[in-house]
Amino acid sequence: MEVVNINQKFSLFNEHWSPKIIGQLNGQDVKLAKVKGEFVWHDHKNEDELFYIIKGTLKIEFRDKIVTLNEGEMLIIPKGVEHKPIADEEVWVLLFEPSNIKHTGEVKHELTKERYGKI
Amino acid sequence: MEVVNINQKFSLFNEHWSPKIIGQLNGQDVKLAKVKGEFVWHDHKNEDELFYIIKGTLKIEFRDKIVTLNEGEMLIIPKGVEHKPIADEEVWVLLFEPSNIKHTGEVKHELTKERYGKI
Repeated sequence: MEVVNINQKFSLFNEHWSPKIIGQLNGQDVKLAKVKGEFVWHDHKNEDELFYIIKGTLKIEFRDKIVTLNEGEMLIIPKGVEHKPIADEEVWVLLFEPSNIKHTGEVKHELTKERYGKI
Repeated sequence: MEVVNINQKFSLFNEHWSPKIIGQLNGQDVKLAKVKGEFVWHDHKNEDELFYIIKGTLKIEFRDKIVTLNEGEMLIIPKGVEHKPIADEEVWVLLFEPSNIKHTGEVKHELTKERYGKI
């Protein structure tokens, strides 16, 4: 058992769009990501995904709307729902999702990470 | 899909030791709890449990040590590990855990909640 300080973990990396695993439980990962710019349209066929904003403002584009998430806000994106995160400035995000989730679903893109590092 | 503001959700209740569900995904719950005082010794036979501190300082007693969690820190307690949370002052906690988890495991206590409200 390890006490995990979220801000200390964020200090360990600067890469954008490269989620890092900070904890695992019940087949799920807790991940941290720094994001900036536009990500790629994708969905996760079998996995719901939780975004919780630690710092900054994240927009998430859906096919029918754009949702804005500010610090201290979270959104659960149900499986199968296409989305595209957009960050005008750097945003720090905590993710909670199944350990077997693929970064960009079935989409292959230069931003796609095949695996997640642990920090 | 609903944007959930954590602090706004905390403003909706004042009860201690009564976790409220604010989101569900992949068979897991995201819950919020306000806690103060001493809870009851218990474990969860089949469920790991994540504590993330939104406000205050939570001590968690284990059979062999006491762990202190401050704001912005999290701890994953593996299934089967006995624990007893203690809060000298009110603490606001976010919990991630399987939806079928029992509040105090197999222990029955006056603080035990048989079900969790949604807010």
